[in-house]
Amino acid sequence: MSNTLRLGIAGLGTVGSEVARLIQVEAPLHEKRSGKKLVVTAVSARDKNKKRDNGLSSLPWADNPSELAARSDVDAVVELMGGAEGAAKQLAEATLKAGKPLITANKALLAHHGLALSELARKQSAPLYFEAAVAGGIPIIKTLREALAGGQVDEIFGILNGTCNFILTTMRDTGRSFGDVLKEAQSLGYAEADPAFDIDGKDAAHKLSILSALGFGAPLEPEKLIAEGVRGITSQDILFADELGYRIKLLGVARQEKDGLFQRVSPYMVSTSSTLAHVNGAMNAIMIRGPVIGPLVLMGHGAGAGPTASAVLSDIIDCASGRQADGFASVMNPKATPLSAEKSKSAFYLRMMVQDQPGVLADITAIMRDAKISIQSVIQHGRSEAGPVPIVFITHDTSEKAFSEAFAAVKKLSSVLEPPCVIRILP
Amino acid sequence: MSNTLRLGIAGLGTVGSEVARLIQVEAPLHEKRSGKKLVVTAVSARDKNKKRDNGLSSLPWADNPSELAARSDVDAVVELMGGAEGAAKQLAEATLKAGKPLITANKALLAHHGLALSELARKQSAPLYFEAAVAGGIPIIKTLREALAGGQVDEIFGILNGTCNFILTTMRDTGRSFGDVLKEAQSLGYAEADPAFDIDGKDAAHKLSILSALGFGAPLEPEKLIAEGVRGITSQDILFADELGYRIKLLGVARQEKDGLFQRVSPYMVSTSSTLAHVNGAMNAIMIRGPVIGPLVLMGHGAGAGPTASAVLSDIIDCASGRQADGFASVMNPKATPLSAEKSKSAFYLRMMVQDQPGVLADITAIMRDAKISIQSVIQHGRSEAGPVPIVFITHDTSEKAFSEAFAAVKKLSSVLEPPCVIRILP
Repeated sequence: MSNTLRLGIAGLGTVGSEVARLIQVEAPLHEKRSGKKLVVTAVSARDKNKKRDNGLSSLPWADNPSELAARSDVDAVVELMGGAEGAAKQLAEATLKAGKPLITANKALLAHHGLALSELARKQSAPLYFEAAVAGGIPIIKTLREALAGGQVDEIFGILNGTCNFILTTMRDTGRSFGDVLKEAQSLGYAEADPAFDIDGKDAAHKLSILSALGFGAPLEPEKLIAEGVRGITSQDILFADELGYRIKLLGVARQEKDGLFQRVSPYMVSTSSTLAHVNGAMNAIMIRGPVIGPLVLMGHGAGAGPTASAVLSDIIDCASGRQADGFASVMNPKATPLSAEKSKSAFYLRMMVQDQPGVLADITAIMRDAKISIQSVIQHGRSEAGPVPIVFITHDTSEKAFSEAFAAVKKLSSVLEPPCVIRILP
Repeated sequence: MSNTLRLGIAGLGTVGSEVARLIQVEAPLHEKRSGKKLVVTAVSARDKNKKRDNGLSSLPWADNPSELAARSDVDAVVELMGGAEGAAKQLAEATLKAGKPLITANKALLAHHGLALSELARKQSAPLYFEAAVAGGIPIIKTLREALAGGQVDEIFGILNGTCNFILTTMRDTGRSFGDVLKEAQSLGYAEADPAFDIDGKDAAHKLSILSALGFGAPLEPEKLIAEGVRGITSQDILFADELGYRIKLLGVARQEKDGLFQRVSPYMVSTSSTLAHVNGAMNAIMIRGPVIGPLVLMGHGAGAGPTASAVLSDIIDCASGRQADGFASVMNPKATPLSAEKSKSAFYLRMMVQDQPGVLADITAIMRDAKISIQSVIQHGRSEAGPVPIVFITHDTSEKAFSEAFAAVKKLSSVLEPPCVIRILP
């Protein structure tokens, strides 16, 4: 067996450059820990003419990334291009078909094609590693796949999108509006110019889908997963949350219930007694619960060049050390049935802006009564100026079906002036 | 290659029994994840006549645990007896000498003989696994060895002893005394009849020593590690901590400084803005910081049959899957020099009980001035009754040497009535 692992890297953005830098500066550490020298022998990226550090500019260059898979001087391929289709998918398939290990940080690719790639990997006896695909520097993939392999898991939930957590935390700290803080997040590089993928919960849905597959053997179907984002959260909701002993967090939640697997990405009211309530800024955190392990929390940087490169390196070192990983093939569970949305239950926070006139509260509570929704508390404060008045209801556990019927009726009331805000309460 | 991994288990207490139970009830899960059937084929424990569940009573029995290593129907040995010497050490050596994988949860054995066992394991090409030896269900060994293998770590610190954290948390929640809460911890089974090993910091020192070896390549010398416990903490100190924005936690701290590796187990004042301040009850939590990874926190049950058995099972599944682990041999760093205690610096909390008479404060502050210790704040509250009065000093960063000289002088003052309480402040 050779004492060198020769790597082809596709994608030389901030993460790819940091991976290359670490391979250079930490060479003695890597060799001691993996028993092999790690060497980058070929690269591919968008712009061939860009000047690059760490010896990258002088390396053989593949115009088509898939060429990396075929090169005889490449033992394993590191895919850091991103995108569920196109070049990234072609490179992944070419690598595994060549029987070579694939290390990828591409969550969209895995969320959409993870099972097919895993089956290909298994057929070709080629390992498939993807620690960096979910939650950056937090070793959640290794934890679910390996550290918790001995027992069942009941629940996986957490803060999976740093952009949304930064926005919600900053709104609370400063009292500023969603739109205002979003602009700051964009100027700081925490949010993309088109922020929809992050703030509408799609990014978190991709990550949750991968974690659900690993923890419960659920099918990888991110597009079927209910995902709500944070656009509808106002400063007012954040103040009410504080008053009620909660923090608002965008969570991905997967929970094994009697009738199936509950999965959802949406804003949640998280009790201040929970660790997750105190995870602030762009940090990520994931809580796992199981009958054997109890609660386990992992918290850290979910993105950024350093943490993501650290995760990629851990995969490379696993690969060099001969620690195999077969993607999702060994964890899929054909019995993992999704729970139908109608069957799931939750307690709800419902905030409405209403006209300050007699009978409004009676109209709303009548709708709740008719839907058999039991109310835990109501907040309506004295008002200081003319204009719409906020009313907040907290319900007891209610089926999604009953709540959505009542919600539709409430929205139609002429005294309810703006779209109400609904936030589920984390049990 | 056989499709079965045959295990000999030594030690059938709560953890051993739970491991055996999980091997029975989760057999399909384990086989799917590791590719092998796990089977217990022989056991050894103190009392042969005790009735045991999960088929254990009918298994071949080794009167001397070391016989397990020699049995032809045992592929790997699981050592759950405990103790740094004697039968556990003999079994560990016999297993590795036979070229068989050793899975152990024995932190005392590893803290004292980890390096020799690792070298033996490497020489015999026999893997050595010990996830359950530190912090129970928290996968800190795998995280340090594998997930963070790509970059340097600057600092590892955390709550490593659940007994002490339970006592400190309960003292704060109830206002009760240390002795009173210790009795409760003993009656609940959180503390041993002889609690010294836990409450004097020795248990945490063993764990910190193992983590320091993995994270920094530090020599395994738990007896050289400075370890203070929690016996001297009073309800008064807990109230002062609250007033100052801290929680008191027993921490193990290892930090790479310019002149060497700082290592210490002692009570610390932890700012309420830190995640660790909010880890309560018998929970453990470990924070790791590094230039690449940033901060990473792992939190969970550090003890108990379920979490510990889950960690043992993750090792067994790694073993069955062919994921190698060579103990400490690949991480030791001959350059990891311990920082001399005198060179290390800290800010200090110093609480004294003094006679309420003129000149006391002048005497104490003169001693501080002469030792060139700069004071950040002083608290002396109005008194409601006769008797000694508490005075609290918070210093700026001070060398251990200067502080210990000043402390010796302060203790000698006739107006200082009881042994003062010293707690370092976590930077």
